[in-house]
Amino acid sequence: MQILDGNLTSRTIKNEIAQKVQEWQSKGIRKPHLAAVLVGENGASMTYVGAKVKACEEVGFDSTLIQRPASCTEDELLAIVHDLNANPDIDGYIIQLPLPAHISDKRVLEAVDPSKDVDGFHPENIGRMALNLPCFLPATPAGIVTLLERYGIETSGKHCVVLGRSHIVGMPMTLLMQRNAQPGNCTVTVVHSKSKNIDAICREADIIIAAIGQPEFVKADMVKQGAVVVDVGITRVADASKKSGFRLCGDVAFDEVAPKCSFITPVPGGVGPMTIVSLLMNTLLAAENRSVSK
Amino acid sequence: MQILDGNLTSRTIKNEIAQKVQEWQSKGIRKPHLAAVLVGENGASMTYVGAKVKACEEVGFDSTLIQRPASCTEDELLAIVHDLNANPDIDGYIIQLPLPAHISDKRVLEAVDPSKDVDGFHPENIGRMALNLPCFLPATPAGIVTLLERYGIETSGKHCVVLGRSHIVGMPMTLLMQRNAQPGNCTVTVVHSKSKNIDAICREADIIIAAIGQPEFVKADMVKQGAVVVDVGITRVADASKKSGFRLCGDVAFDEVAPKCSFITPVPGGVGPMTIVSLLMNTLLAAENRSVSK
Repeated sequence: MQILDGNLTSRTIKNEIAQKVQEWQSKGIRKPHLAAVLVGENGASMTYVGAKVKACEEVGFDSTLIQRPASCTEDELLAIVHDLNANPDIDGYIIQLPLPAHISDKRVLEAVDPSKDVDGFHPENIGRMALNLPCFLPATPAGIVTLLERYGIETSGKHCVVLGRSHIVGMPMTLLMQRNAQPGNCTVTVVHSKSKNIDAICREADIIIAAIGQPEFVKADMVKQGAVVVDVGITRVADASKKSGFRLCGDVAFDEVAPKCSFITPVPGGVGPMTIVSLLMNTLLAAENRSVSK
Repeated sequence: MQILDGNLTSRTIKNEIAQKVQEWQSKGIRKPHLAAVLVGENGASMTYVGAKVKACEEVGFDSTLIQRPASCTEDELLAIVHDLNANPDIDGYIIQLPLPAHISDKRVLEAVDPSKDVDGFHPENIGRMALNLPCFLPATPAGIVTLLERYGIETSGKHCVVLGRSHIVGMPMTLLMQRNAQPGNCTVTVVHSKSKNIDAICREADIIIAAIGQPEFVKADMVKQGAVVVDVGITRVADASKKSGFRLCGDVAFDEVAPKCSFITPVPGGVGPMTIVSLLMNTLLAAENRSVSK
């Protein structure tokens, strides 16, 4: 059993990106520039955005954090989006979700210029991914694919079972794993809340990607000997023994599942760090596109 | 065993559309108007476009056929596309594929205004379908979903196996059958040229959608008793006993498979007529959107 080490892999890729940025600067090309928009004071959101800004600094990107109170109106947010679309100094930007309930995620995300949509959430980018056209891939699925690729895991002809059909992980994973690409070319089965016989379906899987947000849902008896298991879940579970009062728990019962696997991601330190790296890779790509189009 | 009768269902829906058009006209709203662009003299393409134009007439739509010789350049075709995008009298239009080899399908289809893309081929419409947002669904997948719906076939929680991952049938089918909608909510498995154990996977299916273009690929021993089988294939197979010298053959060995099915589509007369009806439904929707936005 080998750990798919997201911390290590993300550090390696960050170094590669940092080197590229240095090369650009030595040629007089300006650094990639990511903007992040944060509305309200959601603790988790603040942590995530902070980590993204820090990652930008680590690789030498410019970053801009735009913060607005939870009272920000949809029109005010849309005005920010339009400014960011028009601003030639910004290569790409993200709107941190969730937004306050009085703002429509859909309307805001659809207003993002697809060429600056480094989260890969815009319908046009999702469609281009489905059609195997150049695009910004959604960050978590892209991170998983990169992790599989960096560990040289053969996916072609394998049966991949995706647990969950969310728009930001499960659904895009089914598209990425089925398409004619490397990694890809899997027989893909997607299961979700309406599915039956999930245990039996998982037992057929060469690769399991668990993204349903149910702590330790995947047990050892659902996993075939030698399977590759990728755990996207990250839920806070109450734990009195921890100073914080909780521990982070994946969708996979790691201790019992790991011994059966050829490869498995830990939680934390697996998919999580890869997600941020995907955002950096998308921003780099946006900056490259900008340079090309000039 | 019951036949999923595409001829009958498409006639019913055409009557419904024709009635709607008449209602519109009695209110002074102009008819929906579909344009079709045909480049070159491909026999099958001419037949398909002819059938689409005829279907428009049947339901009372206006239609315009724009024909250009195979020598038409990409720039000339793009100019037609831009004119159609700008023309307020055209609600929707299609570019009949395949295009001559010197023209990029991709470039032309991406130039189509998504709000007039009644074939549902534009990346933005594919992405909106994936995200379960209002959009034009690609015609064949939409026709299949409509057929299942009209026959009241329960899909929620069923295991649907899609054979083929083409951008116009297989891939969109996987998205439509998995999404949280009715029809939908299936556990979906997609198999393709790189897949293994296809026979065994098919035997698990409650619903099989065959779209690989291999005549009579699906045999009786691949089908579970009581399954629903939808046959998208339509290949010309040499047949000396026919005046034309060929017969139309689906992806399913109908004679041996049908007795095991609860429902099955014939070829021809199953999915084919539903595809044209989807195009009409999309054009009606485009015209409705036009009325709303005015």
